Amino acid sequence: MLNKHQGEDVASLMARIGRNARAAARPLAIATTAAKNAALLAMAEAIIAREQEILDANAIDVSNGHESGLSGSFMDRLKLDPARIGAMAEGIREIAKLGDPVGDVIAEWDRPNGLHIERVRTPLGVVGVIYESRPNVTADAGALCLKAGNPVILRGGSDSLNSSAAIHACLVEGLKAAGLPEDAIQLVPTTDRAAVGEMLKGLSGNLDVIIPRGGKSLVGRVQSEARVPVFAHLEGICHLYIDRSADLDMAIRIAVNAKMRRTGVCGAAETLLVDRAVASTHLVPILDELRAAGCEIHADQEVLKLFFDAKPATEADWVTEYLDAILAVKLVDGVAGAIEHIETFSSHHTEAIVAEDTQVVEKFFNEIDSAILLHNASTQFADGGEFGMGAEIGIATGKMHARGPVGVEQLTSFKYRVRGSGQIRP
Amino acid sequence: MLNKHQGEDVASLMARIGRNARAAARPLAIATTAAKNAALLAMAEAIIAREQEILDANAIDVSNGHESGLSGSFMDRLKLDPARIGAMAEGIREIAKLGDPVGDVIAEWDRPNGLHIERVRTPLGVVGVIYESRPNVTADAGALCLKAGNPVILRGGSDSLNSSAAIHACLVEGLKAAGLPEDAIQLVPTTDRAAVGEMLKGLSGNLDVIIPRGGKSLVGRVQSEARVPVFAHLEGICHLYIDRSADLDMAIRIAVNAKMRRTGVCGAAETLLVDRAVASTHLVPILDELRAAGCEIHADQEVLKLFFDAKPATEADWVTEYLDAILAVKLVDGVAGAIEHIETFSSHHTEAIVAEDTQVVEKFFNEIDSAILLHNASTQFADGGEFGMGAEIGIATGKMHARGPVGVEQLTSFKYRVRGSGQIRP
Repeated sequence: MLNKHQGEDVASLMARIGRNARAAARPLAIATTAAKNAALLAMAEAIIAREQEILDANAIDVSNGHESGLSGSFMDRLKLDPARIGAMAEGIREIAKLGDPVGDVIAEWDRPNGLHIERVRTPLGVVGVIYESRPNVTADAGALCLKAGNPVILRGGSDSLNSSAAIHACLVEGLKAAGLPEDAIQLVPTTDRAAVGEMLKGLSGNLDVIIPRGGKSLVGRVQSEARVPVFAHLEGICHLYIDRSADLDMAIRIAVNAKMRRTGVCGAAETLLVDRAVASTHLVPILDELRAAGCEIHADQEVLKLFFDAKPATEADWVTEYLDAILAVKLVDGVAGAIEHIETFSSHHTEAIVAEDTQVVEKFFNEIDSAILLHNASTQFADGGEFGMGAEIGIATGKMHARGPVGVEQLTSFKYRVRGSGQIRP
Repeated sequence: MLNKHQGEDVASLMARIGRNARAAARPLAIATTAAKNAALLAMAEAIIAREQEILDANAIDVSNGHESGLSGSFMDRLKLDPARIGAMAEGIREIAKLGDPVGDVIAEWDRPNGLHIERVRTPLGVVGVIYESRPNVTADAGALCLKAGNPVILRGGSDSLNSSAAIHACLVEGLKAAGLPEDAIQLVPTTDRAAVGEMLKGLSGNLDVIIPRGGKSLVGRVQSEARVPVFAHLEGICHLYIDRSADLDMAIRIAVNAKMRRTGVCGAAETLLVDRAVASTHLVPILDELRAAGCEIHADQEVLKLFFDAKPATEADWVTEYLDAILAVKLVDGVAGAIEHIETFSSHHTEAIVAEDTQVVEKFFNEIDSAILLHNASTQFADGGEFGMGAEIGIATGKMHARGPVGVEQLTSFKYRVRGSGQIRP
């Protein structure tokens, strides 16, 4: 498997993959919803039917991973079991249930000359997904791109290539069963890193957008080197601001959830900002509960004077995505101070405010330029599923095309259909 | 004017312009509609009040242009007169009348847990506009970007810099009058080409999107070298297809308008495809009228047998944007043949069909991947104003973010506002 490309250099291999993807774009764009859903259901079935094959392939990756001394958390993301395989199949079935965005009329209007104009969703084009250890991205990304009518080129991590290839075989089986082009979902069959370089160069115009899924160094490399558009989120430095008008019980509940529910997700809060006006009443009870839940506090000088069980924060704390049970804490002068801090240090992912004063909330909502802003709710709701979009391929922090959760709708473009009765332009 | 940057190298100059633009983004994003409209109206007033100043500056550019032997059509685009200056001011007033897209709720929905989610339009970021001879782009682009809440960096052609600078002074006067940051609209004050290179590199993250307006070589360079997203249309190779079900009179009227109304616009038809089934009845009458209107016909072999007053077409004709009174003509096998030809040679800008058979029209609409598709209407309607969008900054043929006419809405992004009542994620 690993060296399928032997006898063909990586540049030629990738060029061929690009051409194949482009050739699949048209049949896929006009594929019916029924055909796409049939393919998705057949994929899910194949994943269940070929569970042992996938587990065997995964065992090879896991054994190789142990030998090369991969970290525990890496191995945890790599390892598959029947429950994870079942969840993968279920995820594909959920995507089959989503509405087909292609052909949706997003807007329509009439012109005084009688022309009727419709803006209609279309597929976006060829998508490249570059990811790391999680083999389930193969299934998620393949299925989401198919639903949106986009051919996809999957470049999984070297350490999970056997697992990804076994899953990919199931996806191709589903495509075949529904009579859709096999090249609609291609997996790059080499561990050669030059393959990524070719994708970043855009495969001679045959790649329209790249979605990196993985750690900061992967995403950073893709963002700085890609010659095609990128939907990426580099980090989620999410803030929670507790206003003077906040209900204390709610503030405690949301703070603990935003930080501690899962610390490794991009929607986890990394900085807590507390209104100086309620430092004496709100700060300590909130931090007490966070400490009780096992959270380490990195506090600025003022906070340290009120709450002793903390480490002093340094400048680096305001720009660190801990992805761990650590929280940076700072006092600010009301909502204006919170906005100032957030606009300076945020990664423009997700910020939340706890407040009862609606004017304060509107100011927070209007003046902060982040993808997701929440009022009286946990930052951990920053998730395509929680937004009701179904599966997501990631959360985009850029502002071009997609922003926030990237689900099936965000993987589309649009065109205009104009209906006339013989109009010519004066 | 031309050497304002003396003593500062171009890289430093452009870096400073980028930082200034970024600094203006926040005040501009939260500027009220009233303030933005007041600025626009004051700009229009200043342009009228300072007409003589603009004409004097333009006279210098025109005289320099004559000396350097610029072409007639170039000089025509460069030359200003009181009517053109009046139109520029009127264009800005029209933009003041458009709705403010910033803050528009594009979509909203409720979640079962009680969260209410809104998707709200926001400004896009810092826009760079790189253009050639037309000084009026300074006013159009500056005003459109302001309305959408985006700081803009304008890089006009060297040959029109004096004219652009005089217009730009009026825009700044308008910004000041409304209390908006002057750096919201900056004009690059140098003719040094290195300035464009700095913009293509993205000004250290301070430029979010580039819009090139001009000829193929400018747009091509920007597309191939830019390290930031580009809204561009490289060419409009627009097709008109006459189906067997077409009404002949309508076909003639639309063909003549699509080609001959204005031959130099990107929505002008460049290729006429006629259904072979009606070659004997429709072809010659249509071509006769086109010839009578002064159009030169480049015909494929089959067409030449039926219509003698034509030159033989070569392969190059199918991919040429003439922008002139020339039309390539070909017979095709029904709508399937038309789609095949268009998908092979189109620049994905605009295509039109004349037909009475609605099934044929739906096939044409569904299977062609171009920004604008028209039924029984002229391709010359491919225009933001004709779409009811107000002014446009260009027509995008890419599929990322903006497609088709780029008006004030297409210059925005969005964010999510989520309203809760204490929800935490289970």
